[in-house]
Amino acid sequence: MADRKILLSESDLPRQWYNVQADLPKPMAPPLHPGTRQPIGPEALAPIFPMELIKQEVTPERWIEVPDPVREAYMIWRPSPLRRAIGLEKFLKTPARIYYKDESVSPAGSHKPNTAVPQAYYNKQAGVKRLSTETGAGQWGSALSFATNIFGLECKVYMVKASYDQKPYRRLLMEVWGASVVSSPSRDTEAGRKFLAEDADTPGSLGMAISEAVEDAAKRDDTKYALGSVLNHVLLHQTVIGLEAEKQLKLVDEKQPDVVIGCVGGGSNFAGIAFPFMPMKFKGKDITFLAVEPLACPTVSRGMFRYDFGDTAQMTPLLKMFTLGHTFVPAGIHAGGLRYHGMAPLVSHLCALGAIEARAYHQNPVFDAAVTFARTEGMVCAPETAHAIRCVIDEAIRCREEKKEACILFNYSGHGFFDLTAYDKYFSKDLEDYEYPAEKIAEAMKHVPVVE
Amino acid sequence: MADRKILLSESDLPRQWYNVQADLPKPMAPPLHPGTRQPIGPEALAPIFPMELIKQEVTPERWIEVPDPVREAYMIWRPSPLRRAIGLEKFLKTPARIYYKDESVSPAGSHKPNTAVPQAYYNKQAGVKRLSTETGAGQWGSALSFATNIFGLECKVYMVKASYDQKPYRRLLMEVWGASVVSSPSRDTEAGRKFLAEDADTPGSLGMAISEAVEDAAKRDDTKYALGSVLNHVLLHQTVIGLEAEKQLKLVDEKQPDVVIGCVGGGSNFAGIAFPFMPMKFKGKDITFLAVEPLACPTVSRGMFRYDFGDTAQMTPLLKMFTLGHTFVPAGIHAGGLRYHGMAPLVSHLCALGAIEARAYHQNPVFDAAVTFARTEGMVCAPETAHAIRCVIDEAIRCREEKKEACILFNYSGHGFFDLTAYDKYFSKDLEDYEYPAEKIAEAMKHVPVVE
Repeated sequence: MADRKILLSESDLPRQWYNVQADLPKPMAPPLHPGTRQPIGPEALAPIFPMELIKQEVTPERWIEVPDPVREAYMIWRPSPLRRAIGLEKFLKTPARIYYKDESVSPAGSHKPNTAVPQAYYNKQAGVKRLSTETGAGQWGSALSFATNIFGLECKVYMVKASYDQKPYRRLLMEVWGASVVSSPSRDTEAGRKFLAEDADTPGSLGMAISEAVEDAAKRDDTKYALGSVLNHVLLHQTVIGLEAEKQLKLVDEKQPDVVIGCVGGGSNFAGIAFPFMPMKFKGKDITFLAVEPLACPTVSRGMFRYDFGDTAQMTPLLKMFTLGHTFVPAGIHAGGLRYHGMAPLVSHLCALGAIEARAYHQNPVFDAAVTFARTEGMVCAPETAHAIRCVIDEAIRCREEKKEACILFNYSGHGFFDLTAYDKYFSKDLEDYEYPAEKIAEAMKHVPVVE
Repeated sequence: MADRKILLSESDLPRQWYNVQADLPKPMAPPLHPGTRQPIGPEALAPIFPMELIKQEVTPERWIEVPDPVREAYMIWRPSPLRRAIGLEKFLKTPARIYYKDESVSPAGSHKPNTAVPQAYYNKQAGVKRLSTETGAGQWGSALSFATNIFGLECKVYMVKASYDQKPYRRLLMEVWGASVVSSPSRDTEAGRKFLAEDADTPGSLGMAISEAVEDAAKRDDTKYALGSVLNHVLLHQTVIGLEAEKQLKLVDEKQPDVVIGCVGGGSNFAGIAFPFMPMKFKGKDITFLAVEPLACPTVSRGMFRYDFGDTAQMTPLLKMFTLGHTFVPAGIHAGGLRYHGMAPLVSHLCALGAIEARAYHQNPVFDAAVTFARTEGMVCAPETAHAIRCVIDEAIRCREEKKEACILFNYSGHGFFDLTAYDKYFSKDLEDYEYPAEKIAEAMKHVPVVE
């Protein structure tokens, strides 16, 4: 019998992150100033990010050294296991070989600490005392709390009010690691007070929470801001996932994956597993990259590749990306991490070049897949991860029908221990299959600035 | 820097469990019939357990083969990592080397699947179609649901009403794996209907739930009963923990642990890590075994070594064990898994022989330890596990004060992702340090049968 788990030792942990910017067949469009609409330089980001992270945002270097203290912290849970989905393969009677990189083993339960740890480290090195951030469902907030605790930084998390009230477990996890968590909008910022004055009973939104966290960082000398997805340096840090997977596949004599699959919200977990295999594709190898999103938030499948703002309040630089429009309001699907109007510019660029294809699914078939996975592999996944699994199952069934062997690799981005109420709704047939209407997208696109 | 994680490959997974009964310096007292008070034979257990498990309950064989299908299922998460607590050691400035066996990596989040898997397997082999069990906080119920799903058995879980209402996440986890979960007392059994007739608003108890699960198994030909701790065969299965740890310590040139620590409720996770090292102790090596319990349920520290019933309703055989009396009603501490009036007869016997020492702690110092651990090691533990960690920290501090090197090994029996409300109460200074009063113990002991 094949091994279920392919393990690396700590000495195999990658010493460098891979920067796909070095190998792009065509360069990316630069970020633009929201006012002048001219390309911005690194200095524009200096008020909210430390210089090392800004350098990583723009560097053309192919390999970026992982600092020793970051590697040491990574070793708390990395290298993560690569698992062979023997139970699922058998159940599907597929000739495909299915492997998954298990990022749920991090203390915060997802891939997010892969970037939270270096972000906390570089801020500490730059003399920063305190980080501010926003969190929706709480995955990113808990990852950053875990990381700031390691390096002795304070952490202030603005947590969207609806989640703060409904998901106390994620908040408590952040507090166990010493973070200070407030319900957003809060009275701690001008933006928050303004939002509350407009509507004292607002459930909050990620857009509002971002405004509060950015204001907090911009106003305090001791504080910087940290973002959990979308930006180039975040995706860079996540490549540790794919670099490990590459070594692990070699250990079981797999020369390359034929299909690489991940779910996409902002794009970072997908980029993490996919980018290290991108050079093979650029060199002509036959690899399919599938980015999986909810039909309730079909950014790549139905959105447009345009310059748009990263936030609702139009405070961020303009980024060239797939977008549903920054005024997009997502339906309340349970995969909270996939409810974002934009897509990482690097992932968007590769989609536009045809290197990555998008797939979109409804909630119910996604939870069908999650339950099948739990009952064949034993593992209970996050609703975000379940999107990837839905696509994996469909690909494996296609392999069976076409009698085709294939090596399928996917990112198991997080566990579902804090998401069990979503499973409950699925079992109670209480999950809506919401599809974002084309008219609404067309309407929202009218608010996207036209950049010549 | 020393490695943080010591890993074994799947081929290193033990092929046999270790049966400490083979090496006891003095034999155990036999179980007695509750009516006749004469020693009972294996056949007395046949209505509720399959014969292979009954054989394991009484065998004097030192090594018991792990069947291949059980090993294959173990490989979903085993061998589990042995972790070096580098962060905690540094924080405590201790010369002690602290290792912990991470049993939280199982899909159910604790050591419980180590016995749930073989129990489900042997029942399947015996033609059983369905298992019944009780669960309090839900750890055991979720482990059995996970295991029965693997072998295609139905599973009926009687979950104590108070937990069923307050801890929906554990119930949902069981349902994801296909188990049928009811609030106990239920209308599905005679015992349940009787309890409800007496008090329609009862919060239930483990004693009531055991009565329902045993009745269910006794009345249906297709159903057997499964127990998650206390019995010899359960402890036998858990020795896979200590056997792996022994191999892992050798890999880092540790000849033996000087101190072995685990929390005790029924005794199985402690036995799992401790028993494989017991022969060293019997041969004269200097090893200290510390069983850690709550002061709210001080079974070994304050109870008596007597024949007593395993359940409140006096249905089980009489077992010679440390007990607080079968009428004992535990305080509502958060370490639900440690709220049991008795102690596994094997652990009790070794305590009585002086091979194992007990330690007892209050809740608040236990949660102090849990938070220290989360902030130095990054891992958020279950309240039960936190008892072991409290004792580890005290031992490590003693090593520092006595300037003594030592190898400390403990069992990290489970994660705390479903227990975060307990951390919340701790942070809110809302946790009571309840000590079970000596008068109450004396009173309860009056109801313990006198066996000559």
